[in-house]
Amino acid sequence: MADISGLKNRGHSKADMEERRAAAEAFTGAALTEVARGGMDPEAASKNIENMIGTIQVPLGYAGPVHIEGANASGDFLVPLATTEGALLASISRGMSVMNDGGGVRARVFGDAMTRAPVFRVDDLDHCAKVMEWIDSHRAEIDDEVAKTTSHGKLTRIELFPDGRSLYMRLSYSTGDAMGMNMATIASEAVCRLVERETGAVMISVSGNMCSDKKPAAINMIEGRGKCVVAEARVPKDVVEKRLHATSAAITETNYRKNLVGSSMAGTLGANAHAANMVAALYIATGQDPAQVVGGSMTITTCEDLDGDLYICVRMPAVEVGTVGGGTRLPCQREALSMIGCLGDGKAAKLAEIVAATVLAGELSTLAAQAAGQLGSAHAKLGR
Amino acid sequence: MADISGLKNRGHSKADMEERRAAAEAFTGAALTEVARGGMDPEAASKNIENMIGTIQVPLGYAGPVHIEGANASGDFLVPLATTEGALLASISRGMSVMNDGGGVRARVFGDAMTRAPVFRVDDLDHCAKVMEWIDSHRAEIDDEVAKTTSHGKLTRIELFPDGRSLYMRLSYSTGDAMGMNMATIASEAVCRLVERETGAVMISVSGNMCSDKKPAAINMIEGRGKCVVAEARVPKDVVEKRLHATSAAITETNYRKNLVGSSMAGTLGANAHAANMVAALYIATGQDPAQVVGGSMTITTCEDLDGDLYICVRMPAVEVGTVGGGTRLPCQREALSMIGCLGDGKAAKLAEIVAATVLAGELSTLAAQAAGQLGSAHAKLGR
Amino acid sequence: MADISGLKNRGHSKADMEERRAAAEAFTGAALTEVARGGMDPEAASKNIENMIGTIQVPLGYAGPVHIEGANASGDFLVPLATTEGALLASISRGMSVMNDGGGVRARVFGDAMTRAPVFRVDDLDHCAKVMEWIDSHRAEIDDEVAKTTSHGKLTRIELFPDGRSLYMRLSYSTGDAMGMNMATIASEAVCRLVERETGAVMISVSGNMCSDKKPAAINMIEGRGKCVVAEARVPKDVVEKRLHATSAAITETNYRKNLVGSSMAGTLGANAHAANMVAALYIATGQDPAQVVGGSMTITTCEDLDGDLYICVRMPAVEVGTVGGGTRLPCQREALSMIGCLGDGKAAKLAEIVAATVLAGELSTLAAQAAGQLGSAHAKLGR
Amino acid sequence: MADISGLKNRGHSKADMEERRAAAEAFTGAALTEVARGGMDPEAASKNIENMIGTIQVPLGYAGPVHIEGANASGDFLVPLATTEGALLASISRGMSVMNDGGGVRARVFGDAMTRAPVFRVDDLDHCAKVMEWIDSHRAEIDDEVAKTTSHGKLTRIELFPDGRSLYMRLSYSTGDAMGMNMATIASEAVCRLVERETGAVMISVSGNMCSDKKPAAINMIEGRGKCVVAEARVPKDVVEKRLHATSAAITETNYRKNLVGSSMAGTLGANAHAANMVAALYIATGQDPAQVVGGSMTITTCEDLDGDLYICVRMPAVEVGTVGGGTRLPCQREALSMIGCLGDGKAAKLAEIVAATVLAGELSTLAAQAAGQLGSAHAKLGR
Repeated sequence: MADISGLKNRGHSKADMEERRAAAEAFTGAALTEVARGGMDPEAASKNIENMIGTIQVPLGYAGPVHIEGANASGDFLVPLATTEGALLASISRGMSVMNDGGGVRARVFGDAMTRAPVFRVDDLDHCAKVMEWIDSHRAEIDDEVAKTTSHGKLTRIELFPDGRSLYMRLSYSTGDAMGMNMATIASEAVCRLVERETGAVMISVSGNMCSDKKPAAINMIEGRGKCVVAEARVPKDVVEKRLHATSAAITETNYRKNLVGSSMAGTLGANAHAANMVAALYIATGQDPAQVVGGSMTITTCEDLDGDLYICVRMPAVEVGTVGGGTRLPCQREALSMIGCLGDGKAAKLAEIVAATVLAGELSTLAAQAAGQLGSAHAKLGR
Repeated sequence: MADISGLKNRGHSKADMEERRAAAEAFTGAALTEVARGGMDPEAASKNIENMIGTIQVPLGYAGPVHIEGANASGDFLVPLATTEGALLASISRGMSVMNDGGGVRARVFGDAMTRAPVFRVDDLDHCAKVMEWIDSHRAEIDDEVAKTTSHGKLTRIELFPDGRSLYMRLSYSTGDAMGMNMATIASEAVCRLVERETGAVMISVSGNMCSDKKPAAINMIEGRGKCVVAEARVPKDVVEKRLHATSAAITETNYRKNLVGSSMAGTLGANAHAANMVAALYIATGQDPAQVVGGSMTITTCEDLDGDLYICVRMPAVEVGTVGGGTRLPCQREALSMIGCLGDGKAAKLAEIVAATVLAGELSTLAAQAAGQLGSAHAKLGR
Repeated sequence: MADISGLKNRGHSKADMEERRAAAEAFTGAALTEVARGGMDPEAASKNIENMIGTIQVPLGYAGPVHIEGANASGDFLVPLATTEGALLASISRGMSVMNDGGGVRARVFGDAMTRAPVFRVDDLDHCAKVMEWIDSHRAEIDDEVAKTTSHGKLTRIELFPDGRSLYMRLSYSTGDAMGMNMATIASEAVCRLVERETGAVMISVSGNMCSDKKPAAINMIEGRGKCVVAEARVPKDVVEKRLHATSAAITETNYRKNLVGSSMAGTLGANAHAANMVAALYIATGQDPAQVVGGSMTITTCEDLDGDLYICVRMPAVEVGTVGGGTRLPCQREALSMIGCLGDGKAAKLAEIVAATVLAGELSTLAAQAAGQLGSAHAKLGR
Repeated sequence: MADISGLKNRGHSKADMEERRAAAEAFTGAALTEVARGGMDPEAASKNIENMIGTIQVPLGYAGPVHIEGANASGDFLVPLATTEGALLASISRGMSVMNDGGGVRARVFGDAMTRAPVFRVDDLDHCAKVMEWIDSHRAEIDDEVAKTTSHGKLTRIELFPDGRSLYMRLSYSTGDAMGMNMATIASEAVCRLVERETGAVMISVSGNMCSDKKPAAINMIEGRGKCVVAEARVPKDVVEKRLHATSAAITETNYRKNLVGSSMAGTLGANAHAANMVAALYIATGQDPAQVVGGSMTITTCEDLDGDLYICVRMPAVEVGTVGGGTRLPCQREALSMIGCLGDGKAAKLAEIVAATVLAGELSTLAAQAAGQLGSAHAKLGR
């Protein structure tokens, strides 16, 4: 193996980054000039990455404006989206424009809880029951442990799932405007240490996968994780016909055969056309965790033909977003958040509603295009 | 609403982009200087995005080197990863280093098929059966239609799923080194038009969701989509103990209670710790479709204690990647692909094996950290 | 079509039954002498079936005795099982005998709730939110409606799942010793009528499938339905070797590759060898609803090698049983219930623990047989 | 523990049964007179059960007649159903009668394969690939092994699912008119022994749970197990209104909100109202394996409003039935099979279509009742 000492440089200065990049070039033989062009100060990303050698530039565009009348997001939004998939933004924009013609999108956050679910090893069923009883009767002590680790997070619910020598404990937290995964992990570990001391249970993992982070899990679709958001629009009959070259009945039929029956036959969690596309583009633009696209992919899209008008709705049970912390600290991402007025405190629920409105627009446009048999040719024209 | 004429600019020149960006600033009130800094030529991204106003810079680092002995990927790789999640790359690198001490990773692609599954409306069960018979007995004509749309793609399999007035047709293609979604869509639409002409069936959607793209669907976990890849490593007992401060038995127990039992109890497709993290970081770095992180999230991770040595393995049934087309055309992404020798033709299977090796490293490191009770404190130290 | 007037006889007397049977013989050409042999008085079954023409006799045997130390079931039980599958009872008995040698089974009911989940149509998201608010703030009125329909049932929990123009309301009830589906349905319909009157929501179905009765639904696996029961046993090393001709390590490995990994790869709800077999045989014997075998099939079986001893456990999240009402009123079924002391009031939790203990025995025996490579040959010898 | 020597009697004569029954009475204190009344000769059930002490009588009635125009079942059928659930048969009969008014049911079997999926332990990925290659290139030898164990069964497909040190092999068989589980198990074990000898792979279990028998597994819903059957009916507008007191639109809406969206939100495999009810009643009556109700529960029910007419359809991907072997040998069960002309050779596909027609009737009636808001009150009147 080549000399890799430069690769081991752990510093965050520009010089450190340059040394690493040079070492990476030497090791791989690749020229790394483009990734250096952005010029992001590595100090700014010191909490976001290790071994930094530059940046990947993802094309940023926008969709909209879209008119939203949400419980938290109100007004006309130009939504920043980072993608490499041609035709996507044009399609979302079309959906937004069509919905605007019908009065825009209504959206609402219904639940808000970040979860962590440690798993303990217990001796046997009897011990398991005793540990459960201890937890059930010591909520105040548990809350105290949480409070020692965070001032923003609050434990809102404890669910226990016994399985003989394993005990799963799903902890739900309100985490303010942070996505909250890290806060929940640290608080949960403190809770676990308390339970260990008091009951003799052994924490095997602070995450026992009933959380469940970044995995397609029915528990999140059912109970929710992060924000549970619903967004809807009603598009008048004449707008459907003139703008989408389809009918409400045809779009509803497409949703029925494709999203509802087809998804069911494929054994899918959720039922949508391509929610993950919109979620990924908006998450990358705004510094969210792109692995949490998985949660967004469990969206359920429904359509109804209301006397010729098209009613369309998305239910997104697991929108795991924040407007402080994580990738929201980075320069480009902050600007994207600013475009929709979602930078900083008090904005996470607003962001979640914008996510749902954007997904709704993409679903509408794609369903309409498929109803009109246009998907393949649209891609052929705009290329990708 | 403000004047938005600049927003409607559809051009791809730098001047067009600047006009749009200025219009976006005016509309949103946000300053957009950072997204302009990267300086990517919008012409270069003209097939990847519309309404481009700049780029989002995602911090790029690397993990490794990792030694891989794959069917397609062989050698020592420094893996480019774009993320905003602190501690992730350090963790993956640790996993790689530990596996290197045990001889590295073995990896192999077992299947390779991009799928599209149109849904037709048929009159009734009798018509449905007739359409199926026609399809079954006209494979040559169907192949001809495919050949008219693509020289790279080849139809490899047709599966039919009847449901009364709906008929689902899952088409599998080999698509060379492109991820192939677009190729499969265009070819499938041509096939559908043929079936429509010959049988009277009506294509309701070129994608009937038994494909299933960017949705967590059991059909993909079972039958595979894109590349099905398996990667494994064996870490000697003393390496486990010295480097991971854990035992093979403890790591195996963590995998058992967390990934296997916990995932099952949560109703999860797949069983892993955080495969989506590695997939997302590598996909963003190399210009893959980040919405296809969903396919990667269905990974199954298994561990065995082999006389004190740790055997660890990931099965990834849906690694939907390409080394030509899509985001792989962009400047930074090309450099990232070059770092691992995966730019251009003949490299897609190699890339898939590197994906699996990277996921394996991340799984190993996290499971070991959890086995040692370190997850929370690791995050506290490295922050995110 | 032949004269079928006799088929339309709706009476419950023996003469009525005989007329119907004769008419059925005439219509079908089949001789129906065996189904008449049991001689069950049709009056006794008047609430259990319509169009009665006799009985199907299902062979009844027993497994055991099994020693159970449960929270509700304590002692030595001879478990009645009705089946047509050769080798099943012998296998279960073997499992019980082996567990007895290790001190028997521990079992415990952890949750107990029968659920019904109506779905309402609402006007839109705004209306949906208003209906939810009304429900959240009128629990007393809702409880009153429930009380008007049942003195045994009690509403214990309301969960609301909004989706635009649909609102799902999962209602959980304690239902005493009845399985409780009927009680829950009637009470839920009363609740729905109240909600309709007060909010303008329209009940589309008293069962909106988030209940979910007799369907394999993740929501029941996660939240439980009926009784959630866990049963465990520890079989000493020497007993495993002498009685099962296997080792604890081999059985644990079989459970790992088959029940845990194999089930995950197949996209299964639950993870077991053949829990449904034991559930079906015990449900038919004791007058439970055999369609609710579906709930029992979501069992998770886990094994651990504890220094050579075998630890085995089943978690059954949806054991939907009762000891009053339904099929428990019938003569043979009453005798079967009597065999295990489960006839009548105060016995449902006891019955659930016996169900779990029996499933545990069957799982143990089959896993051990498979570990020893004996499954095929066992069937060949005992035939079926 | 009491003297249990009589319990250990393994004989099949009437005297043996009486001795066991007396011992069971002594052990349990229960009087067992009703279970003795049926008088079934225990010799007749010697391949179906061990430890026989009598029979459980399950009330037998019928639904219908129903007019079926199937690929295999043609004519008017009076369907035998054994149940303890009041109102069920009346409801199914209503559905049949209504469908008859619209010309009856069309039904068709689309696939037919019994599956067994052994799991092997292999050394590592390299060994795994070698074993797969061996299997792929020795199909003739494998077929020979199968032929040595059965003259009725034929291996029709081999699917391989590698996962590092585990290799799953899903074997599909045509099994004539037997349900075929036992035949498939014995043949598969022979195949495994061959693979073991030739490749060094170790069979860990002849059933690695990708089969998957009696578990709710997506693989069976997608690929099918036993018979895949579809049945449909079209009910004219005036019949819907006069007979069902509902409209086609209302029934379609109920199916949409309940079976499609509700099931999806609950994380269900399949989407139906209560298919398991019909399946259980028909399986018990005709000597099928009641644990395989699980496969039947994955039915998808769809409705469409065709200009006021109601189109309704069930897709049942896993109807695991036989007309020879197993419980079909028993006296009452033979009579039930005779009622529908399904006794003996050449009848399994016919039986599967009758199953689907019966499920269709039950779905129609329940959906219509729910659409009319009648479910709760129907139960109150007919009691259960």
